Amino acid sequence: MKRTLGTCYYPEHWPEEIWEADARRMAETGLTWIRIGEFAWSRLEPRPGDLHFEWLDRAIETLGRAGLKVVLGTPTATPPRWVVDKHPDMVAVDADGNPRKFGSRRHYCFSHEGFRQESDRIVKLVAERYGNNPHVAAWQTDNEYGCHDTILSYSDAARKAFRVWLKSRYGSIEALNRAWGNVFWSMEYLSFDEIDLPNLTVTEPNPSHTLAFRRFSSDQVVTFNKRQVDIIRAHSSAPISHNYMGRVTDFDHFKVGDDLEIATWDSYPLGFLEDRVGADDAHQRAFMRQGDPDFQAFHHDLYRAVGKGRWWVMEQQPGPVNWAPHNPAPLPGMMRLWAWEAYAHGAEAVCYFRWRQAPFAQEQMHAGMLRPDNADAPALLEARKVADELRDAPDVSAPQASVALIFDYDADFAWTTQPHGKELSYFQLVFDTYKALRKLGLSVDILRGETRDFSGYKIIALPGLIYVPQDLKQVLAETEALVVMGPRTAARNADMVIPVPLPPDMPGLDLAVSRVESLRPDMPMPLKGGGAFTGYREELEGAGEVILELEDSQPAAYRQEHLVYVGGWGDETVLKRLYTMLCEEAGIDTLDLAGGVRCRVTDGLRIWTNYGAEPADTPAGRIEAAGVLFEKL
Amino acid sequence: MKRTLGTCYYPEHWPEEIWEADARRMAETGLTWIRIGEFAWSRLEPRPGDLHFEWLDRAIETLGRAGLKVVLGTPTATPPRWVVDKHPDMVAVDADGNPRKFGSRRHYCFSHEGFRQESDRIVKLVAERYGNNPHVAAWQTDNEYGCHDTILSYSDAARKAFRVWLKSRYGSIEALNRAWGNVFWSMEYLSFDEIDLPNLTVTEPNPSHTLAFRRFSSDQVVTFNKRQVDIIRAHSSAPISHNYMGRVTDFDHFKVGDDLEIATWDSYPLGFLEDRVGADDAHQRAFMRQGDPDFQAFHHDLYRAVGKGRWWVMEQQPGPVNWAPHNPAPLPGMMRLWAWEAYAHGAEAVCYFRWRQAPFAQEQMHAGMLRPDNADAPALLEARKVADELRDAPDVSAPQASVALIFDYDADFAWTTQPHGKELSYFQLVFDTYKALRKLGLSVDILRGETRDFSGYKIIALPGLIYVPQDLKQVLAETEALVVMGPRTAARNADMVIPVPLPPDMPGLDLAVSRVESLRPDMPMPLKGGGAFTGYREELEGAGEVILELEDSQPAAYRQEHLVYVGGWGDETVLKRLYTMLCEEAGIDTLDLAGGVRCRVTDGLRIWTNYGAEPADTPAGRIEAAGVLFEKL
Amino acid sequence: MKRTLGTCYYPEHWPEEIWEADARRMAETGLTWIRIGEFAWSRLEPRPGDLHFEWLDRAIETLGRAGLKVVLGTPTATPPRWVVDKHPDMVAVDADGNPRKFGSRRHYCFSHEGFRQESDRIVKLVAERYGNNPHVAAWQTDNEYGCHDTILSYSDAARKAFRVWLKSRYGSIEALNRAWGNVFWSMEYLSFDEIDLPNLTVTEPNPSHTLAFRRFSSDQVVTFNKRQVDIIRAHSSAPISHNYMGRVTDFDHFKVGDDLEIATWDSYPLGFLEDRVGADDAHQRAFMRQGDPDFQAFHHDLYRAVGKGRWWVMEQQPGPVNWAPHNPAPLPGMMRLWAWEAYAHGAEAVCYFRWRQAPFAQEQMHAGMLRPDNADAPALLEARKVADELRDAPDVSAPQASVALIFDYDADFAWTTQPHGKELSYFQLVFDTYKALRKLGLSVDILRGETRDFSGYKIIALPGLIYVPQDLKQVLAETEALVVMGPRTAARNADMVIPVPLPPDMPGLDLAVSRVESLRPDMPMPLKGGGAFTGYREELEGAGEVILELEDSQPAAYRQEHLVYVGGWGDETVLKRLYTMLCEEAGIDTLDLAGGVRCRVTDGLRIWTNYGAEPADTPAGRIEAAGVLFEKL
Repeated sequence: MKRTLGTCYYPEHWPEEIWEADARRMAETGLTWIRIGEFAWSRLEPRPGDLHFEWLDRAIETLGRAGLKVVLGTPTATPPRWVVDKHPDMVAVDADGNPRKFGSRRHYCFSHEGFRQESDRIVKLVAERYGNNPHVAAWQTDNEYGCHDTILSYSDAARKAFRVWLKSRYGSIEALNRAWGNVFWSMEYLSFDEIDLPNLTVTEPNPSHTLAFRRFSSDQVVTFNKRQVDIIRAHSSAPISHNYMGRVTDFDHFKVGDDLEIATWDSYPLGFLEDRVGADDAHQRAFMRQGDPDFQAFHHDLYRAVGKGRWWVMEQQPGPVNWAPHNPAPLPGMMRLWAWEAYAHGAEAVCYFRWRQAPFAQEQMHAGMLRPDNADAPALLEARKVADELRDAPDVSAPQASVALIFDYDADFAWTTQPHGKELSYFQLVFDTYKALRKLGLSVDILRGETRDFSGYKIIALPGLIYVPQDLKQVLAETEALVVMGPRTAARNADMVIPVPLPPDMPGLDLAVSRVESLRPDMPMPLKGGGAFTGYREELEGAGEVILELEDSQPAAYRQEHLVYVGGWGDETVLKRLYTMLCEEAGIDTLDLAGGVRCRVTDGLRIWTNYGAEPADTPAGRIEAAGVLFEKL
Repeated sequence: MKRTLGTCYYPEHWPEEIWEADARRMAETGLTWIRIGEFAWSRLEPRPGDLHFEWLDRAIETLGRAGLKVVLGTPTATPPRWVVDKHPDMVAVDADGNPRKFGSRRHYCFSHEGFRQESDRIVKLVAERYGNNPHVAAWQTDNEYGCHDTILSYSDAARKAFRVWLKSRYGSIEALNRAWGNVFWSMEYLSFDEIDLPNLTVTEPNPSHTLAFRRFSSDQVVTFNKRQVDIIRAHSSAPISHNYMGRVTDFDHFKVGDDLEIATWDSYPLGFLEDRVGADDAHQRAFMRQGDPDFQAFHHDLYRAVGKGRWWVMEQQPGPVNWAPHNPAPLPGMMRLWAWEAYAHGAEAVCYFRWRQAPFAQEQMHAGMLRPDNADAPALLEARKVADELRDAPDVSAPQASVALIFDYDADFAWTTQPHGKELSYFQLVFDTYKALRKLGLSVDILRGETRDFSGYKIIALPGLIYVPQDLKQVLAETEALVVMGPRTAARNADMVIPVPLPPDMPGLDLAVSRVESLRPDMPMPLKGGGAFTGYREELEGAGEVILELEDSQPAAYRQEHLVYVGGWGDETVLKRLYTMLCEEAGIDTLDLAGGVRCRVTDGLRIWTNYGAEPADTPAGRIEAAGVLFEKL
Repeated sequence: MKRTLGTCYYPEHWPEEIWEADARRMAETGLTWIRIGEFAWSRLEPRPGDLHFEWLDRAIETLGRAGLKVVLGTPTATPPRWVVDKHPDMVAVDADGNPRKFGSRRHYCFSHEGFRQESDRIVKLVAERYGNNPHVAAWQTDNEYGCHDTILSYSDAARKAFRVWLKSRYGSIEALNRAWGNVFWSMEYLSFDEIDLPNLTVTEPNPSHTLAFRRFSSDQVVTFNKRQVDIIRAHSSAPISHNYMGRVTDFDHFKVGDDLEIATWDSYPLGFLEDRVGADDAHQRAFMRQGDPDFQAFHHDLYRAVGKGRWWVMEQQPGPVNWAPHNPAPLPGMMRLWAWEAYAHGAEAVCYFRWRQAPFAQEQMHAGMLRPDNADAPALLEARKVADELRDAPDVSAPQASVALIFDYDADFAWTTQPHGKELSYFQLVFDTYKALRKLGLSVDILRGETRDFSGYKIIALPGLIYVPQDLKQVLAETEALVVMGPRTAARNADMVIPVPLPPDMPGLDLAVSRVESLRPDMPMPLKGGGAFTGYREELEGAGEVILELEDSQPAAYRQEHLVYVGGWGDETVLKRLYTMLCEEAGIDTLDLAGGVRCRVTDGLRIWTNYGAEPADTPAGRIEAAGVLFEKL
């Protein structure tokens, strides 16, 4: 399969007279894919039942005639005002109890059955009409589930659905009381109908309660999406995708992905750097116009897993955006670099968001490939260059890596429920590990928590996987790979209770975490040989070999055969030391990358990227600022 | 007209036995004006319809007998409890949807017709009774519109009135949808009755929606005030004023001022320094007991414009206040300095707030001219000194300046709606420009956005004037003055949409802002020759002369004939360089002031002030800390 | 009376089979007291009226048989779900108007009569059943009144009760209007039924209003507690206690204590260090694993006063807790040190919270004396050592100190109502004074504001006691002790109004505070001879001797005979200088302690503690990190 380019287009925003010229220009730029339709409900059905699909017919026809392929979105992320008037209680309710009103987007609660039926209805209408359209070559459900913190809703609809979900999960109220330890603080319930949503409690609610609500909320998204998928599939054989948002961890992307053919994600490196990477000020200054050197790569690897191998960047930042605290312009070259980073990780397509900057409404300051006055914007010029380069480039490819890193949304729910130290997050722990591996020049496969077949991997890391089912423990105990656990791996049972025997209770590893502590970030605990644990640390009682030690000679990491357990949150130095040592043993070659230089190997190529604002030297030669270097292997 | 002094007095707070002594002491101190009545509703009408005006008759008589003139306030800023009980939904509603309860002041929504009628009624009663009173020489409507964030109300009354306002502005819902670009995110409405207030949306509302709501809210204040003015004017020929609050930009002071004879404002230099000047810690430490050297001057110039030449300081800080995060005492001399600063800018009167410190209720820690125990407080002593100096001082005067600076409330509404970078504000941009001009020793006239006659000015600056109507563009294109635009000048149309051709689209200036970016404050973009753009910067495509250049040789400011466009937020150095250059060309003499020393020229005098805590040298001689120096020209 | 140890135990959390082994192990550890029952309502009465006390009978019997004494708690801090369903409006309402929902604890409003009757009922059932039980040797009412900010409730029930309370306090609405100065801003009421709770006002409410609401809220706790006490006392002669929480100042602990025999408090030194000590980052780093060296001592002295001599630590931190922003492990030795600190201050008992770490629910990360897997945790080992040491230790004792320091909850209500500077708090002012005295090696008695008999004291300090009744002024004027006042001593009358003559208006002291100012914390005002006032400062006019002077020669402290007034918030150096001088005159020996070393004298012993992380030298010899040293006197 060839690597392709695309863009997101809103024909409803522009006079029909210019559609054809737009389509021609897209094709000339070298684009293949055009995503349309995902916010167009008020133009498709301005009044209840008053359907106006003709313009969309013409738009698709125009694009198709120009040789472009259409990704058609279902318009459910933006129900028109009349839908809300019909179902006034369909809006989500925030944690303070306020309804989240109409006037922007994603103003629906996933649990509201009335809105679910509206969603079914409009999706069916769209699917019936375009299911066999030759130009509609892929589908997208809704848009960015979870964006703007829209997964958790404290509405009446959610409360009702949560009770049903709990009953289905626990069977009896006695079982739930037992599983949650509700004897504590007399929180025992007499029936499922007594259970409220875990907001506005006097002090924190039972973490088992909160975790259950997060799981329920995630499942509501899965169900909502599946209803759309089932309807589309009844009318179309084109692949179905959803465009996930970077570092949205409030629902299980893998489970949504189980119902889709392709995973896509929306990559805004500059906005994310300030908004969600978690980097300090110095790092943010250094990469202000380039984005974090690892954040995109992490998500690329994640969505390759979510998409079971098939994945795209559905929205690629094309210039300054409008929504971050500050919105700088990318360094020249970055729009090309970001595309190549995606291809290096196996992307089938990279679509710039959006074709032409809209001069009105919320995103009027969001750049496009064209300026509002229709002139070429820098993104268009860089996209054209990528299109040229793609002509001779190898096909889509992402060979299996030697190192596997588990990322599990359920673990994130649990950590968020109870981080124990105020800066601690599961995502950050896994991402720190990812960064360390990538700085060693390694390609990494991200695997979901449900993985049981690890064949081909030499190292399997599962930091922070807070609940490890017994069968996974068994698989890991029997694998030939090096297994790196901790901190907090297997620290809870399925209901957020500390297990006895104490964690990790891993077959083949004589080790117990006897006590844990969270620490101020400015009170690191140094390790002998360099580096430190910061923020979180566990006291270990074990029998194996101590492979890392705190400066006060307490054990910091144990190893027994292929099983390694790290009792703390290692800083960059600790992680580098640890994985260098393990790679050496496993026969994996490593590099020592610094600054903004990174690389990834695809079939026959090592693709180097330089996120730095200055040129840099690599073993493969000099690389420009914001540059890409192709090294034949 | 002679320059005068005054104070604010609350006879209802004190036993009637001491009124006469108070009045005598006021006169002896050299005061002319006594403002009274503006919070006295519960004493004038303790129960519905139960009127008690006799005490106020006597108070006015007592003051008049002592030779004092009364400014009489309408008491609508503090409706008594029974008014709220009569109209429970008259209170404003905050952005979170909570009613703002009785128990302090300004607890009304400007859109509530029931309360508007109560306001009409009480104002009529007051105006009828005192319209011809010989001692009532001026009026004040209400008190500090907008204080405590009271302009925007999300009440039912506001929602209803907003819909009427929108219908009147846009005519048809189709026109509104088009103007706002509501096709975006399917936000299209079918009728005005579907439009809600722009709070509690899932993510930001359409900026056109928010801007319209801000304009509506401002208009509600104008209407509210006008109803009071019309009633007073039917019974009195004395001038009518309102006391505006420093850096309250939520409504259009000019439009309220159109209905008044005099503009006044309430000047609290120390409270404001911490609370709203926007200064960094070092600056706040340096001027903790003196206030910012330019903030008062800016407002003096602003209210001279709002008052069409006639303006006062209605409340002058007399010592420590009660409401800032910290409340230090002013340096000895500052109460005099602040008064002279006002006179230097053309004030007719300076009234210290308040006569005697009230030992009870919210402002018990707010100093007065007298202490609670009736002893002289420092303000009284300094006021007496000013009174002595006024005897031989020239009359009120404010000759036209050479430099005009436009300040436009509507532009502030637009910037607040969409600052693009999180620290950016229109007020700050204009104020930064003002500071730079004042440090060059220049007198500045602040002009409203509706100004079309600029005769007499040599330089006209309109930074950040985000919407520039076509007729103003024409006037500026044809003026002989130097016109300084940018950043963000003319960046939007009247409905908050980016115009095409791209901004500023100015006749006579071949220039387009091709892309804009907001920046972290710690990532300035240096200019060749010194200084930097900070926070905000625009990419320029133009044909004129590049008069400022970024260090990377990109153009930073263009000039074509008399039209200058600056593509970024210049720091102090940049603004100084730019305006020094332009003044030189325009034949305007400049100084180079630093630290806390400033000056202003009135007829025949240059009045020097030293906000510094140490003495300083000026071309006119040495000036004490907190001192004033009169230089005859 | 012998000093004793104890723990908190939740038999309902564990299988009945292990109770006996638990009891035996408690006894073997050397424990005497076991607190139980305070969260067990849902197990005692799972459904309305469906009583299940048999398990508790057996638990008490099991503990008693092992020679242990039971403290039995009333279970009202955690009403079960069905109680809330029966009285849906019984929950408290937060300041934003949101009901504080079921799902954790303390979900009741103290003013709700329906819940008060439920409380009466369950307490009566418990008291009837166990009033004569030989093993129930003490009682505890409820649990940690005020924890999680639960004193102030803005519910309908509170509003109604507040009106009744106001009527009872002020008699007539005219008297209230006068006392509060409601003429200000037309806040006058026509009847008590018009008075609302002071939340959600447009700007701050009248401080007299807020203060009254805080007093009312405190009184509601007193009444609530007294109803429980009266019921228990009707059935039992065992002493009754309540476990107060550190630095909860929202209700008057002394007044609650008036109805109890024993005061206890819950001491969590590491959690408190980060959460409520108010220490800067450097101090927090230095004592991260030890806790503040003075915070526990202060509370020990406070609760000795609240308990009229009889007091315990009811909950002693046993290891890392779960609820602070970060939760480090204590340094080895601290669990012993904390116990000895308590005994040094006269504690009868120290009970570690809790026996075994619960692996479920909110406190699953809260350490116990046993780990979840039943192994000994460090707390158990240290408790055992303390138990050994107690065998030969002297009896409970707390001889009267030479220095008295007044701490008054009502003063804290007033300061909280109106701090004047944003960092200022009464607790911090008194605590700063306490720290200074303790660093001089002094033992301190904390006295309540109602104290009138000061015999035996050589120094009486009452910083910040903002309202000083006339009879207390008289007593202080006539005492032979040195009396240290200021800042803000006697600054208000009983209703939060500045008195005239100006404060402090103290017989025998010719002094008036003529003006006050609050300051940025980074703008200290240095004193001659060292140290500075920070944050707050008063201008003094007086006749006595100036004993401290600002660097600009303004008076900083006056003295006349035995009366001293300090006009500012002294830093550590100022307080040390002042009290060293006064102690010398009063013939009190002082030491000069630094770092983490402190001491306290009991009968015949000076007990040294080292909160430092390094060993230190004392006059009595070397003391280990986290060590205790017993010096025979």
